[in-house]
Amino acid sequence: MSKPLLDVLNGITRNPPPVWLMRQAGRYLPEYRAVREKAGSFLNLVLTPELAAEVTLQPVRRFGFDAAILFSDILVIPHALGQHVTFAVGEGPQLDPIADRRGFERLASEVDHGMLAPIYETIRVVKRELGPEVALLGFCGAPWTVASYMIAGCGTPDQAPARLFAYGDAAAFAVLLDVLVDASAGYLVRQLQAGADAVQIFDTWAGVLSPPEFVRWCIEPTRQIVAKVRAAVPEAKIIGFPRGAGTMLPRYVQEVAIDAAGLDWTIDRAFARERIQSRVPVQGNLDPLVLVAGGSALDRAVDSVLEDFAGGPFIFNLGHGILPDTPIAHVEQMLARVRKR
Amino acid sequence: MSKPLLDVLNGITRNPPPVWLMRQAGRYLPEYRAVREKAGSFLNLVLTPELAAEVTLQPVRRFGFDAAILFSDILVIPHALGQHVTFAVGEGPQLDPIADRRGFERLASEVDHGMLAPIYETIRVVKRELGPEVALLGFCGAPWTVASYMIAGCGTPDQAPARLFAYGDAAAFAVLLDVLVDASAGYLVRQLQAGADAVQIFDTWAGVLSPPEFVRWCIEPTRQIVAKVRAAVPEAKIIGFPRGAGTMLPRYVQEVAIDAAGLDWTIDRAFARERIQSRVPVQGNLDPLVLVAGGSALDRAVDSVLEDFAGGPFIFNLGHGILPDTPIAHVEQMLARVRKR
Repeated sequence: MSKPLLDVLNGITRNPPPVWLMRQAGRYLPEYRAVREKAGSFLNLVLTPELAAEVTLQPVRRFGFDAAILFSDILVIPHALGQHVTFAVGEGPQLDPIADRRGFERLASEVDHGMLAPIYETIRVVKRELGPEVALLGFCGAPWTVASYMIAGCGTPDQAPARLFAYGDAAAFAVLLDVLVDASAGYLVRQLQAGADAVQIFDTWAGVLSPPEFVRWCIEPTRQIVAKVRAAVPEAKIIGFPRGAGTMLPRYVQEVAIDAAGLDWTIDRAFARERIQSRVPVQGNLDPLVLVAGGSALDRAVDSVLEDFAGGPFIFNLGHGILPDTPIAHVEQMLARVRKR
Repeated sequence: MSKPLLDVLNGITRNPPPVWLMRQAGRYLPEYRAVREKAGSFLNLVLTPELAAEVTLQPVRRFGFDAAILFSDILVIPHALGQHVTFAVGEGPQLDPIADRRGFERLASEVDHGMLAPIYETIRVVKRELGPEVALLGFCGAPWTVASYMIAGCGTPDQAPARLFAYGDAAAFAVLLDVLVDASAGYLVRQLQAGADAVQIFDTWAGVLSPPEFVRWCIEPTRQIVAKVRAAVPEAKIIGFPRGAGTMLPRYVQEVAIDAAGLDWTIDRAFARERIQSRVPVQGNLDPLVLVAGGSALDRAVDSVLEDFAGGPFIFNLGHGILPDTPIAHVEQMLARVRKR
């Protein structure tokens, strides 16, 4: 039995398109909140295979999504490099910020895959539980985005601390990104070997870079990861999602040689069809906020996304992660609308 | 004697290009901080012509910029509609937020230009003081951006409150935007009649809108303002700056029929040359953060902007407002680099 999501990644147009949602395992689900409470810390949830597998499977059980995505976080890589990372409930992550080159020279130069072994085990557990039509996705953060958290210690409006670091000492920043390239490639290879059907690289903060920095800090490290993963797993399917890339996205798609492109909710859809979907399958791009709003605005927005992209290889998704205050009824309304067409 | 900035707005390529900086009158200047302290409240500074004129002129005196921009704030329009607006030092603006349709039905439906009269007087004072080669720019906020502050009461990471309001009650939101279109057009016309050589419309939050909302809430109201201003002042020159528009910018330029386009620091420059500068003069787009960083990174970034845009009608500027912690020496370094070419 074929998996619709993998069909699309292989260039086949499916109608209706396969659907999943970024952050689909999350706080908007009461069953997630129950497990999250039981787990104690967020990192304990991520690193306990039976719990992480349970929350990975919850949204697939409830909604029948076409993909499960590994429940984890992009900051397990700094954690496995020895940086102190914590996640408070309802807040963003907190890391001990890195002020200068000495700050990351204190970290390991290679990731400890033993610390990440529970994540590979989660993938094996989920794989056994999933139906034959449901794809299992792994993921990592792109080096630029992960480094931007490592330097600032948290999310900021435009990741100015990391941009300033990179302007001030580009050579040191490049060393940090090289470490993250190796760590991320090894991490994705192990996820694929454990049973992930495809992987996604999240570059959440790609959109704050100027073009020369976008090429150097987003495209180039991601290109290296893709090449390393393909060298180890030639058939690997890799989705790239440089959020906010906008006018830089065509160059990203070409130079990274990505298999499919995630689209945020702000991109001009004619541009995305002509410059992106004509070359690779696309995934996206409903505004997460219209899923909170619901009502006729949601129906119109879903129809608009389908009209604009469903004529080619397309995976229905949001343009960013689902928001914690999203009503479950709105997810059901959206799914019914996507699937009745 | 001609004004280089107006030459460029008329389609002429000037080499070196004229230069000014968004928020060039601001906290990075000690002479500004001295006047700001004397003025008491920010609104008192904006609405006292001799003080507002003084801070408008300060950066032109110090750096010899090719334009002065009226010292004011986009939120004087909600102020003149009767909404309570305050500005605390070092923080963003605070307004009494609008929760629903009734919230703005309590405001005036037409702006009180008597409240804005000191601003028109500031323009007359500055105009008398400026040298013959220096252009005087007026400005307003675009309706979407102004409305997003009126609803949230402050800046937020992605102006979700206003986007949610517009998804939930588009008819009410359209009424608010109509009020802002009329107010802003009348405001710009009076600025031009008082002596502004050109005006700029700042749509700082254009980049968070999905394409259908971008057309409805950014392009359409701005198009109406431009048409109304030209009906009253046929020779008016209007610069549009929808920050973060990215792939939507060509459509904005065409449909708004703007005279020149501001570019933020993230746009692909080949795209901007081919799709924007081929049609209208462009202004921008140095990353404000590299002006904080300084050093060889600043030199390289300035050279890169010049190489990419100086072959056509171009005004050198930042891609967003100058940051308060920008060293004055870096502004001098940048100006020397722009002007020696």
